[in-house]
Order: sequence, then C-alpha cells, then structure tokens
Amino acid sequence: MSVVASKDLVKGVFEGRIWAIARMITRAEASDRASEDALAEIYKSSRNAHVVGITGVPGSGKSTLVAELCKTIRKSGRKVGIIAVDPTSPFSGGAILGDRIRMGELVGDEGVFIRSMATRGALGGLSRATLPAIDILDAAGFDIVIIETVGVGQDEVDVVRAAHTTVVVSAPGLGDDIQAIKAGILEIADIHVVSKCDRSDANKTISELKNMLAIGLGLSAPSAWTPSVIATSAAKKEGIDTLAEAIDSHVKVLKESGEWQSRRLTMAEMRLLKTAEDILRDEFERHRAGKIQALVKKLANAEIAPQGAARKLLEDVWKEISL
Amino acid sequence: MSVVASKDLVKGVFEGRIWAIARMITRAEASDRASEDALAEIYKSSRNAHVVGITGVPGSGKSTLVAELCKTIRKSGRKVGIIAVDPTSPFSGGAILGDRIRMGELVGDEGVFIRSMATRGALGGLSRATLPAIDILDAAGFDIVIIETVGVGQDEVDVVRAAHTTVVVSAPGLGDDIQAIKAGILEIADIHVVSKCDRSDANKTISELKNMLAIGLGLSAPSAWTPSVIATSAAKKEGIDTLAEAIDSHVKVLKESGEWQSRRLTMAEMRLLKTAEDILRDEFERHRAGKIQALVKKLANAEIAPQGAARKLLEDVWKEISL
Repeated sequence: MSVVASKDLVKGVFEGRIWAIARMITRAEASDRASEDALAEIYKSSRNAHVVGITGVPGSGKSTLVAELCKTIRKSGRKVGIIAVDPTSPFSGGAILGDRIRMGELVGDEGVFIRSMATRGALGGLSRATLPAIDILDAAGFDIVIIETVGVGQDEVDVVRAAHTTVVVSAPGLGDDIQAIKAGILEIADIHVVSKCDRSDANKTISELKNMLAIGLGLSAPSAWTPSVIATSAAKKEGIDTLAEAIDSHVKVLKESGEWQSRRLTMAEMRLLKTAEDILRDEFERHRAGKIQALVKKLANAEIAPQGAARKLLEDVWKEISL
Repeated sequence: MSVVASKDLVKGVFEGRIWAIARMITRAEASDRASEDALAEIYKSSRNAHVVGITGVPGSGKSTLVAELCKTIRKSGRKVGIIAVDPTSPFSGGAILGDRIRMGELVGDEGVFIRSMATRGALGGLSRATLPAIDILDAAGFDIVIIETVGVGQDEVDVVRAAHTTVVVSAPGLGDDIQAIKAGILEIADIHVVSKCDRSDANKTISELKNMLAIGLGLSAPSAWTPSVIATSAAKKEGIDTLAEAIDSHVKVLKESGEWQSRRLTMAEMRLLKTAEDILRDEFERHRAGKIQALVKKLANAEIAPQGAARKLLEDVWKEISL
C-alpha cells in the first residue's frame, strides 16, 4: 500500500472518498502524532452529522436492528456511517467477524460506510479512534453516524454520551426483568427499543419499560423530549420506520428547545476528558518498560501508596508532553 | 453518626472490626484528601489476601455462584470479603437491590463482609473505591476477597485484572454461541465456569469452551497454569467444591512458578494508571463548572482541536495537584 500524504488524505475525506475515509480512520487508530494535524483540521471543519448511539446488552439484536435502520434511512437518500465498537480482543477477531455479518445486505451501497472497532487490550479501554472516526465521517459528508456499542460497561455508556441521540435496545426474556436497570443505561436513553417483538414475551418487556418511564425512572434530566418505547422486529421488518422517524423527531425537538446546544457542550466535555485519558494511557504504555517501571516496583512493594505514586506519574506525563 | 478519628478507624480496620471496615470503605468512596493518609497506611500494611475476580455477562448467574462459593470457602474457616461492582446508576438503586438479594443466607456470619458498589455516573467509570476496599479487607484479615463484576465493558476487564485469580462465568444458551468471544474476556480467565449446568444445553457451552482452549484461543500468555472449565449448578449445589479447589490450586501453582511476583507487578501497574485517571477525573469534576468551562466551549465551537485541548487540561491538572 502506498503512503498517501496527509494533505491528500484530508482532501479525499472532504470529498467523501471511501478509500480516504478508511485510511484516515486507520491512522487515527494508530494515534501517532503524525496524524494529529490532519485530525485537527478535520475536527475543525463544519460538523453537521447527526450522531446516533445505539446500545443494549449482548443478545439484544442490536446489529440486525442497525442494519435494518440503515436501509430505512438510505431510502431518504441520506448517507449513513456505522461504527461498531466491539469489546473484543485482538485474539478472537470478533470485530472482523462482526463486520462480515453486518456487511451482507449493505455491501455495494456507496452511501453506507461500516467500520468495526475492537476495544483495546488490557490498559486500553474504548477504541480511541471512535470519536475521531465520527469527525472523519462527518467531514466526509455523512448525514447520520451510528455508533453501536454493547451497553453494559461504563466505557460503552461514555461513548453513547458522545451522541446526539441515544437508543437503548432491550430484548424480551434476556435473563432477568431488570436487565435495563442492571445495565445502568436506562436513564441515558432518548428512545427505547424493544427488539424481537415477534416473540410472545415482548409485551411484558414493553410494559415494564413504559411503567418505569411513567413513574419517572429512567429520566436523567428535564427535557423537552419525552423518551418513547418502540417495538421492533427485524425479522418481520416491523417498527423500523417508526424508529427512524423518532430519531429525526428527537433532533428537531432538541434544536427547537435549545437543548441541542447544551448537548454539544456535554459532548465536548466528554471529548476533552477522554482525550486527556488517552494521552495519559499512551504515555504510560510508552514508558511502562522504562522509567515507570521503578515506580511500579515501589508500589508493588508497598514502599509508596497509590495516591502518591499516581501524582508522580501525572507529573512525569506532564513533563513529557510539554517537551 | 459520630465522626470517628482516622487513627481509630485504621486501628479498627487492623483489628478486623466490621464497623471500621464499613466506614473506611465509605470514606474511600468519598475520595477526599482527608482519608488519603489513612488509606496509605492501610495500603502499606502487609498484604496476604487472595484476590479473586469473578466476571461474566449479565444473566450468567454470577451472584448466586458467588454466594455459594462463599459458603463453601467458609467451611475451611477462612474469612471472605465480597465486593460486587454493579454498573448501576444512582437513580435505579440496583446496587442496594443486589445487596439484599445476596445477603440473604450469608447474613449473620461475621467471617463474611459484603459490599456492593455502584459505578459512578456519566464521567465516572468503575467505582474508584474498589481497589482501596480490597486493601481495607486485606488489612482487616480477610483471607479471600472476591470482586464480582459484569464482564463486558473494559472497566470490568480492568478490575478483574486487579485480581490474582480470575474466574469467567458463562451460561448455556445466552443469546449466541460466541458470547465469551464477544465479551472479549476469554483470555483473561484462569478458570472458566459454566453455570446452570442443570440445563440441557450446558454441554454445548462446555465443549465450545474446551475446544477454544484446546486450539489455543483464550490463552493470553505462557503460564504454568492451564485454564480449566468447571461445570456448576448453584441450584443443585454442584461443582462449587471443585471451583473452590481450583481457586486454591491456582495460587499454589503461581507461587511455585514465580508468576505470583510478576502478577503483583501487573496489578501495581494497573493500580498506578487507574489512580492517576481517578485524580484526573476528580480534578475535572472539581473545575468543570469553573476554569475548564472556557476550554470546553472552545472545543465545542471547534476553535481548538481535542488533542490540543487535552494537553492544556493535563497542564492545568498537574499545576493544580502540585500546589
């Protein structure tokens, strides 16, 4: 593969070229300083994309739902980007598997871009390229960017908060009745979806969710928008239109009420903290076999306590990045 | 409740007093600097507890398994601490619910201490008191400390890496065959448990796991220990003895092979990074309505790019904590 100059890559992204988008995301994943200027230029380009986070516990049928939703939105001519964040290790290759399953019916449509991202290893957390990938798709003219995550860990909740609209998917009969509560993701939902509604036990899940919303559980803050519960069946292709309409209505209501602006600030807050954490982790990885090693040994031998050691680490990191 | 001096609280912890342990954990949760010296003293006390991480997807029956395991270990007279990390919001009160369900049969046994910890809100991640709580239980003379987490997000994987022994619980028929792969937690397991083995489809899950291990999937690094697959049924009280024995054997093998020491270093590495991240998040929370606000606005308006803004944040944090 030839090396493309950053300038040409950025130009390609602005022109919406698929090859440029794919390569730029790969560079963002490598997270070296060489691509920093290019990513900054992309970030600073106007942002019009509607970012939709879709989350739910494993087995809730998110991937199928996302594929169906994408096909429905495409009917309006809008371009759809999909970023699937899979908490999958490099060992198992699950992200690649996910891509193949998802691609199926959507492949060949130039108005659709799909990328699966594995989460990083032991010290990594969320794929740090997720947020830059949203910028890249936005700058490339995608109208809607869907971030699909498994919604149980805090990282997944965090990335969904990087979205304008959050859809939480529940499925009937998944283990216990309080899956949404246990997953801690009820109150981040702008829209609830109960998937697999061809199943006979779906009505129970729907009414549980509606009851929780009715008594005020699952509402994080006062809003002009009232979360709704939508029943879908990807198998029978039901409810997908309603979901697509609800996603559009949500943005409309936020913009009319002025909440769109405050949500932008929340998203920027999240972005700021996440990026700082990424820098901290990068520096940690870079020096863990070097100068950080002595600090780790002292901590392991209880010659220093965690708080003191961590302050020393932050001092080192700051000195390093301010060079 | 009267205010207890830190000195008396630390003394109470060292004497294994339940009231002192509970209050010290509460102070660790508050994470103010006032308790820092007490927690440092506790950290620096000798550490003998065997930390066991138990994780699995929602619905895998972890909580029931942990309760049964606890009862089995208690027969040997050893004291057992349980910290259940629930990715639950303050809104839903799931952690408290969890406590009640779990406490049932174990209540009244002074050799058992149980604490549920909700994960923090939007910007929080793992409960930051989890690691200090392990120190506290260790210093209080608990022989085994079990950390129970929902194993899907990266945060949960991280906390399990704070353990000497990691048990990954899978359940038969949970959505799809690749739950363990999707959850990205296969390779962190020292011991695999397939729960609910009274079910007819359990054998399929067991052989899938065994096959994956046989072809070398799920092995993160060469070790003297070979991960095993244990079938349990909490309902029929089967397999719990085998699990308790495997947990004991694991430590024995690690100590004989010298891996115990390298694992201690890995745990200290994790601790160092997590604590630094907590400090970063604390400072962020403290100043988000103040001086960080201007930075966030600039970022939201794309006047500055994320990397530059994050470096500025790290500079501010370092200046703040070095005062």
